[in-house]
Amino acid sequence: MSNNSSIYGMLSSVFERAIVFSKSDDKRSITELCDALLSGRGEATGTKIAHALFNKYETLSHEDKQEFFLHLNENLDVSPDEAEAAAADYAKNMSAEALKNLRKICEPKRLELLRRLNSAPGGTERLVRMREDLLGMLNDIGRLKRTDVDFEYLFSSWFNRGFLVLRPIDWTTPAHILEKVISYEAVHEISSWDDLRRRLLPADRRCYAFFHPAMPDEPLIFVEIALTNEIARSVQKVLAEGRDEIEAEEATAAIFYSISNCQKGLQGVSFGNFLIKQVASDLAYDLPNLKTFVTLSPVPAFTRWLAKASKEEPDGKAHEALGAVLGIEDGEGLERITSLQGSLTELLAHYFLNEKRPDGLPFDPVARFHLGNGASLLQINWAGDVSAKGLKQSAGLMVNYHYNLKDVEANHEAYAQDRVVVAHKSVKALADKARLG
Amino acid sequence: MSNNSSIYGMLSSVFERAIVFSKSDDKRSITELCDALLSGRGEATGTKIAHALFNKYETLSHEDKQEFFLHLNENLDVSPDEAEAAAADYAKNMSAEALKNLRKICEPKRLELLRRLNSAPGGTERLVRMREDLLGMLNDIGRLKRTDVDFEYLFSSWFNRGFLVLRPIDWTTPAHILEKVISYEAVHEISSWDDLRRRLLPADRRCYAFFHPAMPDEPLIFVEIALTNEIARSVQKVLAEGRDEIEAEEATAAIFYSISNCQKGLQGVSFGNFLIKQVASDLAYDLPNLKTFVTLSPVPAFTRWLAKASKEEPDGKAHEALGAVLGIEDGEGLERITSLQGSLTELLAHYFLNEKRPDGLPFDPVARFHLGNGASLLQINWAGDVSAKGLKQSAGLMVNYHYNLKDVEANHEAYAQDRVVVAHKSVKALADKARLG
Amino acid sequence: MSNNSSIYGMLSSVFERAIVFSKSDDKRSITELCDALLSGRGEATGTKIAHALFNKYETLSHEDKQEFFLHLNENLDVSPDEAEAAAADYAKNMSAEALKNLRKICEPKRLELLRRLNSAPGGTERLVRMREDLLGMLNDIGRLKRTDVDFEYLFSSWFNRGFLVLRPIDWTTPAHILEKVISYEAVHEISSWDDLRRRLLPADRRCYAFFHPAMPDEPLIFVEIALTNEIARSVQKVLAEGRDEIEAEEATAAIFYSISNCQKGLQGVSFGNFLIKQVASDLAYDLPNLKTFVTLSPVPAFTRWLAKASKEEPDGKAHEALGAVLGIEDGEGLERITSLQGSLTELLAHYFLNEKRPDGLPFDPVARFHLGNGASLLQINWAGDVSAKGLKQSAGLMVNYHYNLKDVEANHEAYAQDRVVVAHKSVKALADKARLG
Amino acid sequence: MSNNSSIYGMLSSVFERAIVFSKSDDKRSITELCDALLSGRGEATGTKIAHALFNKYETLSHEDKQEFFLHLNENLDVSPDEAEAAAADYAKNMSAEALKNLRKICEPKRLELLRRLNSAPGGTERLVRMREDLLGMLNDIGRLKRTDVDFEYLFSSWFNRGFLVLRPIDWTTPAHILEKVISYEAVHEISSWDDLRRRLLPADRRCYAFFHPAMPDEPLIFVEIALTNEIARSVQKVLAEGRDEIEAEEATAAIFYSISNCQKGLQGVSFGNFLIKQVASDLAYDLPNLKTFVTLSPVPAFTRWLAKASKEEPDGKAHEALGAVLGIEDGEGLERITSLQGSLTELLAHYFLNEKRPDGLPFDPVARFHLGNGASLLQINWAGDVSAKGLKQSAGLMVNYHYNLKDVEANHEAYAQDRVVVAHKSVKALADKARLG
Repeated sequence: MSNNSSIYGMLSSVFERAIVFSKSDDKRSITELCDALLSGRGEATGTKIAHALFNKYETLSHEDKQEFFLHLNENLDVSPDEAEAAAADYAKNMSAEALKNLRKICEPKRLELLRRLNSAPGGTERLVRMREDLLGMLNDIGRLKRTDVDFEYLFSSWFNRGFLVLRPIDWTTPAHILEKVISYEAVHEISSWDDLRRRLLPADRRCYAFFHPAMPDEPLIFVEIALTNEIARSVQKVLAEGRDEIEAEEATAAIFYSISNCQKGLQGVSFGNFLIKQVASDLAYDLPNLKTFVTLSPVPAFTRWLAKASKEEPDGKAHEALGAVLGIEDGEGLERITSLQGSLTELLAHYFLNEKRPDGLPFDPVARFHLGNGASLLQINWAGDVSAKGLKQSAGLMVNYHYNLKDVEANHEAYAQDRVVVAHKSVKALADKARLG
Repeated sequence: MSNNSSIYGMLSSVFERAIVFSKSDDKRSITELCDALLSGRGEATGTKIAHALFNKYETLSHEDKQEFFLHLNENLDVSPDEAEAAAADYAKNMSAEALKNLRKICEPKRLELLRRLNSAPGGTERLVRMREDLLGMLNDIGRLKRTDVDFEYLFSSWFNRGFLVLRPIDWTTPAHILEKVISYEAVHEISSWDDLRRRLLPADRRCYAFFHPAMPDEPLIFVEIALTNEIARSVQKVLAEGRDEIEAEEATAAIFYSISNCQKGLQGVSFGNFLIKQVASDLAYDLPNLKTFVTLSPVPAFTRWLAKASKEEPDGKAHEALGAVLGIEDGEGLERITSLQGSLTELLAHYFLNEKRPDGLPFDPVARFHLGNGASLLQINWAGDVSAKGLKQSAGLMVNYHYNLKDVEANHEAYAQDRVVVAHKSVKALADKARLG
Repeated sequence: MSNNSSIYGMLSSVFERAIVFSKSDDKRSITELCDALLSGRGEATGTKIAHALFNKYETLSHEDKQEFFLHLNENLDVSPDEAEAAAADYAKNMSAEALKNLRKICEPKRLELLRRLNSAPGGTERLVRMREDLLGMLNDIGRLKRTDVDFEYLFSSWFNRGFLVLRPIDWTTPAHILEKVISYEAVHEISSWDDLRRRLLPADRRCYAFFHPAMPDEPLIFVEIALTNEIARSVQKVLAEGRDEIEAEEATAAIFYSISNCQKGLQGVSFGNFLIKQVASDLAYDLPNLKTFVTLSPVPAFTRWLAKASKEEPDGKAHEALGAVLGIEDGEGLERITSLQGSLTELLAHYFLNEKRPDGLPFDPVARFHLGNGASLLQINWAGDVSAKGLKQSAGLMVNYHYNLKDVEANHEAYAQDRVVVAHKSVKALADKARLG
Repeated sequence: MSNNSSIYGMLSSVFERAIVFSKSDDKRSITELCDALLSGRGEATGTKIAHALFNKYETLSHEDKQEFFLHLNENLDVSPDEAEAAAADYAKNMSAEALKNLRKICEPKRLELLRRLNSAPGGTERLVRMREDLLGMLNDIGRLKRTDVDFEYLFSSWFNRGFLVLRPIDWTTPAHILEKVISYEAVHEISSWDDLRRRLLPADRRCYAFFHPAMPDEPLIFVEIALTNEIARSVQKVLAEGRDEIEAEEATAAIFYSISNCQKGLQGVSFGNFLIKQVASDLAYDLPNLKTFVTLSPVPAFTRWLAKASKEEPDGKAHEALGAVLGIEDGEGLERITSLQGSLTELLAHYFLNEKRPDGLPFDPVARFHLGNGASLLQINWAGDVSAKGLKQSAGLMVNYHYNLKDVEANHEAYAQDRVVVAHKSVKALADKARLG
């Protein structure tokens, strides 16, 4: 970018400019650069070598990148023999040195390589992009998961909640950030800048994102919120053009209607829990009239489950429902399945409360996220999302998860220890009525 | 502080304000809070528990703090048996899960506790202060070094050079930062705000510090620089009131005359190497006339070594020199030892080039730092620091280390691999003339 | 806007928040509020009254606004008798008091009213909007020009170049500013956010705007620049999608291809002269390879002049040319007039050099602006703007005005004193060949 | 200053850097530069000429500066003949042109010169410094007051309250601003940086200043405030080291104990009224427990009046009191006059309520300021300021003026129209008891 006058720019580290501006002309191979960076020499001129290594890496072909990761995986790994010896040594004398040695031995050398790479200009973001590449290879080359374990471990430590910065995203946010929000929105697509404007500018809308100071131009996760007078049941109504706006001070409910992770390379590092709770807490502080904090959430695996249940019981309700849902044609709304409203709603309640994975957790991934955070399942909304995607994934149904800050801890514990899905009695009643057969 | 209008404030994370503003009234003991923070419950409400734990800790007596650290040390340690088993398991199947498990097992549980504590408001700084306390106990309770190993490991990862922000410190810097610079200056005391102003305001002075975004009001390390027309040989001349100032653009040399670490709790995490090189590189870019980058450094262990040599050879030159140096009385300058200029200078050259620790590295700590960074020993300056401290520690001698960015890598390697002290031939010539006996 | 996290926000004054947040419920009429604001009482609580007056004004109908302006115009005017007396008094004793009194008497009371209105929150912008209303009434009610004289006088003083802030506009600029750039672009329409991005993001594009600190979210004027390797002759090539970009450092020419005033209410206050010269000077400093600073400008009144000339000489070249130009149909390009390239180019040269208004200045308004700034007319470009607007206004022709910073002063003087149109000899040669008859 | 990393720096205009960095080598005399700046040429290259003129001016001797001002005064003045003609013309046709011409004619040409000077880098501040010089000459050369009338007029318009920025001054404020606060404090001297820190850092202290965006490093006026639980009666208690601090939220009263104008060159432009009211209003909004807003003010002319009264009535109470006050020796406190507490307090009440200037306004300048703002006189404090200055000026007495935001308007009107000194009945009672004879 030609000029950076943004405040976000002030967060970023200043790097040796001679390095940033010089084109890297290091002739060494990428494995030689790995060696150099890990050697003592790396201490003296690490920033420069790290920059050269990234420059090299970023121009590699897919195959050569695989080679690079295999080098990390096989040649910079833990030695099991040394690990056993170090453990034995620690067992014997329990000294600080032995402990230090134990960890050093049990930590693959590639981890230190990654840490040193971080000293390059833009190093953190470049490491995140590097892991994106790696994740794309795991299906083909399963053993690279060992290397991915180290990326995940490192990022979990570096992207510790204590280092994250919460920022409002609004219509005064720099355009290069907003264009990323448009691109990263994963739940309800933002179709244009005008659409974005409608989500950010009105007095009854809010959006917040977490940033990391070393990646100041890249949101990590963001949440979009509607301030309303009642619990929203339909995302189309929430996003409708020409809807009536209200003053923020008048609102009694905050609807978290979209939450999107932005960085594939940070997979496995969890931000959403912290984000929702902090935003809820901040909003409650700023707008004392807000009493209710709920999501308006999709049920992304519902029809997938219907299909599964349908196979298991070919004459059951699930089969019937699935058939009707799949029969909806492009451009149609809910009409075709209106008569099934009762049974679909009951099936959904059943799906939430009774259908579990082998580990005992709910089948639905969004449910696992919110229940794991300590939210409860509040209600089921017919015609909550009548978009093509909404109809296809969840028969147009949406749900509200309730973040009651006072119950969050107890809910979480019940869920984490006993797999209890905390749900409102009305949802339970629906589930009781559900009949699969 | 009542109002924070500073730009530094923008770096810091925003935290759940309900937490920050509420007084913590958690009734649990500190070990119960440790358990809670490490439990699943800690995931749901970690920020709050972490805040309560710090609040508790910060009011503990010295003895209770020791108890707390002993709890971390003994009850949240690695289990050697589990470690051996995990190593064996990894040897057997080399899977990602086994590797993940190996690291988890070989990492004391207290490390995860520290990471979770970081989510509290001001967590990073509070952890640094906590380690300060711990460091003060290591002499008395040696086994706590095991816990310190974890602090050092964590801080080394978190204060990675890639996360540090370089900032100029000048006369437009907020006062609460400047007052810390005054207080942290460790080499040549800053006696007053006027003294500080003389070091920051003139066109031929510079000061830079590294900050971490999670501790935006706390410099980690800073360096003070004089821009000059010749290599400075006397710190009193550099700091003299009423000296002639020059325009920055005219200067040909940058003299790094003071470098101070600020945070005791970050002991063992090295910043100086990076700081000097980045600042040298930046200055070279901004001021193309600058050709020479040198330090003006004390020799803090010289008279200590004289005393040692004196004991070993009671009739030697070192003994004579030591006697003269020790005989200097308060308020006297160098007069009493002027006649010894030749032999003291030679002894110092010898001290640098030939006196080694058992590990083969130079006796002088400042020499180890700069030579380890790849600098070379350029020259020895008689009457370089005639303050009481300068006379007492180093017989008034100072030296210049030379950072020639082109030689830094080779120098570093020669030093790191072969313990070579790279020195100018004039220093070598002096050392050759030195006679201890 | 719900949240303002923008740096621009920091420029704005902080106002008594009790005032900003309270709804104004002042029951007085707008003329009573005028009286109150001008009275002594206005000194005690001026900000509040000013806010109430604006609130009242902003809800008035068009007719009531006219009434308000007529009140200012007739009842808060200069008294000619008092003016004559004050002039006589000053002639007599030439004292400071007499001078002060003379100015006070010769200054309409409404001017003081406007100054006091400025103390309201957002006062400056609200005054600019108020004048926009007034300007729209001058055609109907000519005598209101007296009141407009005062607005123009005041704004000329307040928007003095010494108070303007130059800011780069780029892709990191807040969206609410960028959306104004889209809306205010007056020369070559910005059709979408993607179009804007193409003008701001590439390394060889620049945009700068003047802001006033009291209206930090409102650009006053902005200029768009292309950095190129040769003098651009076609605006469509400058703006083409998929064109080859170059590095800014490689560019040798800066093409000012669009300059737009943003605030109708600031009519008569000139910023463009300052803007172009400062930007040229700044670019020359940052990018030493830049040697040539030229505009790529439309000729907005060319076909209008052709029509005039055509009427005067119905059988002449102008008539023929005009007919061809008007005959171009929607969707056609230049084809229909290709054969006239020679004669149109010559007519244009003639139009610039020989066609004058009664005051002796060139007929073309853009020419008057740039020549008045001290630029010279460099060359005429066939097919410079083949858009419908370009064809219609100027037969697709564009010109380059040259800002040679060394000649600017002399050019300006020749133009200002002797009405000399400084032009390149090639343009003069064309004009010499031109034949109207 | 070498580096400017301060947020204040972002307020300032960016100027043509070629101008700022080039040394001005214009050979023209200052009057030639005046002519050039006022000529058409000045429009083309005004910024450059303005910079050259300031550079020239700033190196002139006192005598040459006088010559310069006399040139402005005599040669760039209003022509009374033209003024009379313009007034007559306006009387005749009342057109916009005639009005415009009238003002132009009645405005000295030097005013346009000052406006054009403002376009130089740092122009606004340089003009303020220029007027400082001028003010120093008015005693010697009275007729220069005509030129000063224009400076005052221009600054009153440019430093309109709508352009001022209120900023908190606290311990995070840049040092170069704080050092000006130390230097500009005019009421209760700030003796050191530690003293400053005690006034800024504690939770129960506040300080605010007005800035102008074109002079971002120069406070215009600032006020220091103590948040307390009762109306403070002694400035020494307010400023005592080691006093008990309270939380801001607990405070019920805000004591404005010092207010200082900073810029001599802005004499006659009033900021204090706005500052106090805005700060009171803001504090009331932030800290809802604050109910009382009062000053703790000196009585700077009390002993001067005692001397006057003493002369008029050599045997009266005033004479006795004055003698005792003057008899206080260095280092003594109030002891010597304790017995006079009653009569001094009564005399002071009388002084406020009954002693007037010929224009009917109170004798005391501080009283005129606060009463003119609409404050009322609340109480008289014995031993309010026992510093040497306090004893000498006001016999150690201080008073509280009360800013009751609800009464301010009515108080102001009573004072402005009828010269009523609004005072608490207890003060009136004291005045009634006062006996001069």
